Order: sequence, then C-alpha cells, then structure tokens
Amino acid sequence: MSRKVDLTRFNCSLAQALSAIGEWWTLLILRDAMIGSNRFNQFERSLGLSRNILSARLQQLVETGLMERTGPDKRPIYVLTMKGQELAPALIALMQWGDRWMTDGKPPIIPADLEGAALEPVELRNLDGARVRPEDICFVSGPGARPATIAFIQTAARGPVRSKPD
Amino acid sequence: MSRKVDLTRFNCSLAQALSAIGEWWTLLILRDAMIGSNRFNQFERSLGLSRNILSARLQQLVETGLMERTGPDKRPIYVLTMKGQELAPALIALMQWGDRWMTDGKPPIIPADLEGAALEPVELRNLDGARVRPEDICFVSGPGARPATIAFIQTAARGPVRSKPD
Repeated sequence: MSRKVDLTRFNCSLAQALSAIGEWWTLLILRDAMIGSNRFNQFERSLGLSRNILSARLQQLVETGLMERTGPDKRPIYVLTMKGQELAPALIALMQWGDRWMTDGKPPIIPADLEGAALEPVELRNLDGARVRPEDICFVSGPGARPATIAFIQTAARGPVRSKPD
Repeated sequence: MSRKVDLTRFNCSLAQALSAIGEWWTLLILRDAMIGSNRFNQFERSLGLSRNILSARLQQLVETGLMERTGPDKRPIYVLTMKGQELAPALIALMQWGDRWMTDGKPPIIPADLEGAALEPVELRNLDGARVRPEDICFVSGPGARPATIAFIQTAARGPVRSKPD
C-alpha cells in the first residue's frame, strides 16, 4: 500500500525527506550506523533481514547519498555521510517518543554525548532558544510554497495545534 | 516489502515508534492535523488519497491513540491526542532535514511559534543545554535493554559517529 503513495509530488519537505529515506525501517539501518555498525554482516545480524533486502537498501542509501561505500570491494565498509548523520535529531526524537509512549519508562537504548551522558529530550525552540510546546506551534508558508500550499495553509491553519477543536 | 519487516520484535524504541505510526506517509496526515486540518475532506483534498486508504489510516491512528475521533457521527472531527502532538519534534526535524537537503534553500512550509516566528532548527543538546553535533553522539544501553541489545551496542560502539572509519 505504501508504494501507491508518490511522496515526491508533495510540495513539502517532510514528504521529500520520507521519500529520500525510502522504506520506513531503513531508519533502523541508519540507527545501526549511528551506533557504530559499518559492515554488511553487522547490519544483517542486528536487523535479521534477508541478504537481498539488506543489500538493496544499502545500495539505495548509497544512491540517495545517505551512506558511502568505501573499503575493499570484497569487504566494503558502509559509513554515514553528513546528509545521513544529520538525520540524527529526527531519528533520536522518534526514539525518545517511543521511549515515552511505548516502553513503560524503560528505554533499551539511550543516545548520549561523548562522555556517555544522556542527551536531553529533543525539544522545539524558538529563535530566542525558548522551548515551544507542540500545542503552541503553527505553520506558515515559506519561499518554496506553491499557490496550492499557500491556500491550504491559510484554509487549514487555526493558530495553535489543539487536542480539542473549538 | 515493508510489510515483511516486523518492527515490533526489535528491542528499540525507534522501531516501536515506527511500528506505532504505521505507514511512512501516515506522518503526512499528522502534519496536516498539526497545520489545522480536522475533517475527512480536508485530509482527502490535501493528500490526494483514495477514501478507502485514508479512512483505514485515520482509523489506525485512532486505534493507536495518535488521533481522536469526536464530533457528530456523520461529520466527525479528527484531532491529535497528546501522544500524536508529541511527534511534532520528530516530524519537524524530518521536515527541516528535507528543507536542508532536498529543497535548494526554499522551504515550502515553515514551523513557527504562535507569533508566526520560525522555530530554530531542531538540535541535539546534552543535559547542560549545550548543542551536540550529530557526529559527537554515541549510544549506551538503557534499563530496557535485552542482553542481545547490550552485546550489540558494546560490539558496534566505537565512540563518536564518524563519516569515515578509522
């Protein structure tokens, strides 16, 4: 069913990002790479995927510029590019959301800084650095908005995101 | 292909989060809800999905507790729950990544605070509030880690995430 939705047609960077990443679970390959895996066998063992599927996904990640294939041809090394690394805030925000809503307060894996100290939960902030709650955000059209996007935002927008309608 | 990977079996909150959200593009429904859509026809028009598919996805979002269906039966209103709202940092981080890597510096949609001022790009921070670059994170096992997860992290971890291996 997911293949029927062409994400590239949307005038939206979220849709473009989803399209670049490809399959949903491809984020797990990137997670493994962020943890430190860089060999085919490491990804295979950790994710339990068939070699065909894993191979196709790694190839796609290289083609979309999220990973780089280096090292000898017979024993290649797969490493994150800057483009791939910069998915870390999104990936960690999803992980922390899962910690909060799906694990009963017992996270399996904790993102940390180089001293091993847990990172702060990812938060939204305004340009002054003040935290902004999810219910206090709105969306405005940017320089890349097509007319339909501008009209959509104007029609749909009703200020803050609320859990209850007026 | 995506249906072949059972995300719930992973000892990882990222996998659990992906599993709860369901199809990748379901994030676009949540995006629309954050922008302000709350009627079936609004989602339909914005996303261009068939009514069957949209209906099934909204139903799934209600079942997993990300959205709530209220209002009259004949004209229901779909609103985000707290669980759904709290995906905003992850969703916006993905959108900003798309802005940076996929749009040539022209974002179509800009997340903003209630005054309409653009939010800061989502960043990783340590508990002191200092920014942590994606290449300077590592992952440690948490209280919910199974033995295999602990072993995986110990084997794979090699300190900071680097774009080039040693």
